[in-house]
Amino acid sequence: MLAIDKLIEKIIKLKSPVVMGLDPRYEMIPQCVRNKYSLDLEGVSKAILEFNKTLIDNTYDIIPAIKPQMAFYEMFGILGMKTFLDTCKYAKEKGMIVIADNKRGDIGSTAKGYSNAYLGKTKIGDIEESIFDVDFMTVNPYMGTDCIEPFVEDCKKYDKGIFILAKTSNPSSGELQDEKLKNGEEVYKKVISLIEKWGEDLRGKYGYSSIAAVVGATYPKQLEELRKLAMHTFFLIPGYGAQGGKVEDIRLGFDNKGLGGIVNASRSLMCAYKKEEWKEIYSEEEYGLATRKEALKMNKELNFIKED
Amino acid sequence: MLAIDKLIEKIIKLKSPVVMGLDPRYEMIPQCVRNKYSLDLEGVSKAILEFNKTLIDNTYDIIPAIKPQMAFYEMFGILGMKTFLDTCKYAKEKGMIVIADNKRGDIGSTAKGYSNAYLGKTKIGDIEESIFDVDFMTVNPYMGTDCIEPFVEDCKKYDKGIFILAKTSNPSSGELQDEKLKNGEEVYKKVISLIEKWGEDLRGKYGYSSIAAVVGATYPKQLEELRKLAMHTFFLIPGYGAQGGKVEDIRLGFDNKGLGGIVNASRSLMCAYKKEEWKEIYSEEEYGLATRKEALKMNKELNFIKED
Repeated sequence: MLAIDKLIEKIIKLKSPVVMGLDPRYEMIPQCVRNKYSLDLEGVSKAILEFNKTLIDNTYDIIPAIKPQMAFYEMFGILGMKTFLDTCKYAKEKGMIVIADNKRGDIGSTAKGYSNAYLGKTKIGDIEESIFDVDFMTVNPYMGTDCIEPFVEDCKKYDKGIFILAKTSNPSSGELQDEKLKNGEEVYKKVISLIEKWGEDLRGKYGYSSIAAVVGATYPKQLEELRKLAMHTFFLIPGYGAQGGKVEDIRLGFDNKGLGGIVNASRSLMCAYKKEEWKEIYSEEEYGLATRKEALKMNKELNFIKED
Repeated sequence: MLAIDKLIEKIIKLKSPVVMGLDPRYEMIPQCVRNKYSLDLEGVSKAILEFNKTLIDNTYDIIPAIKPQMAFYEMFGILGMKTFLDTCKYAKEKGMIVIADNKRGDIGSTAKGYSNAYLGKTKIGDIEESIFDVDFMTVNPYMGTDCIEPFVEDCKKYDKGIFILAKTSNPSSGELQDEKLKNGEEVYKKVISLIEKWGEDLRGKYGYSSIAAVVGATYPKQLEELRKLAMHTFFLIPGYGAQGGKVEDIRLGFDNKGLGGIVNASRSLMCAYKKEEWKEIYSEEEYGLATRKEALKMNKELNFIKED
């Protein structure tokens, strides 16, 4: 089954367009978990894995996906990469879809290397090995078509998907992305047209392609515009909560059936145990339950699916 | 000392503006090295490390830097990342400058994670740990200033540098990068102006900044144009040899003192032992010597430095 269909079916089944961003910073880990491990790279890697697993245990039956942000694993070196791998494996065992947020992008033959690492397989002579084997990864479009093709090929071959940066959620995203081209259209619109084209062969039963886009919740006007412009492009929508994106903004990224996007929440889910609302009910040791409650709340707020 | 001054001094001392790209594919590794190891991830990781070390042993006194391409290590998973780390360590011990070609880029707090991993330090409570600790890394500009700032900060704090993608060497690079903006200037020119600005505080004694740019040898017109436009921006120039860039094209990326750039060669140096020219002289076991000869040949071709 196409990766995008697998994702959308899970969204519909769970009535949840929520993906939990797993961007673990040391200071996010509850003290009760930190206390168990040594204060070094090995200890913190173990603490992060325990933290991630507990968050997954408490959400795998109510939200469809996790999105580990690679930078927060790479910053702990080899051990961090191992934590990333173990987190992905664990989430997949629990039936969750895994989106590696690594924003890779390089010239053709090198892009193939990245694609092999995350989506496809690595060849060693006649042997083929799966490496990180996630369902989706994020990709940067700055280098153009020949840098996207190797990913698209692996998406076809292995039923995987990619989210390509179109309009990102950060304050300076407009600097290049909003620049108007000579024909009057903005760079991000050119990118979204390219994404529609790159994804033509991978459209599934809901009309969306496994070649998808990242469009931030912090720019609601553009989110609305792109939803109309790119009918076959599914959106990964960051920027909800901590970055300022509101429910009514996010709604604009969804189609009239209430589909077409998945919304990322990192800090609000990972640190739910720090929120006044849940602190009153749950002890720090019960941080997983606080995350579960927060996820259920998000599901209610963000489920735009129209019941027949 | 500023990273860029350290690099330029080495270029002048060795009369070599050459960086050896270490992009190991399995099929590049000489059979005599492959034969020593098992045909699995562990074996190939060990074979790559041996191959890299031999190439470093044979070039550290004649060229200033190596540029490992992360994709080719990530594709071998955790073991591959360990090979990357060990390669960087080894090259640094030999006095070489290490440029991690990983083309990272993300929103502010995440960019900080990547910067910590490669240039700065990772904090665990009050403890700070160096992780991959390279001299330079490559960065993608698509997300704008707030995604570049964390790298620039670490460049200041730890005497490191970055090469930001401006005009890349691949066939489709023009798709976005050559698009003309409303004011008539191309996207890559806007990027190079931003790079000049981002690098203002990090200009060293040769006039160049540690905040540098990637400009491909395969687009000589643009290389020449950007050399004139961005007086303080040092160039990492890929695309020489296999990709089609010629010596006279590359010369255009250098200033009238013969400085201002470093030229990457991957396949031609790594696989020198496969070239007819060196095969006649060296056995496969002497692949390191073939690489050395090829590097010396490149130094002769590409040394544009004007003697006083």
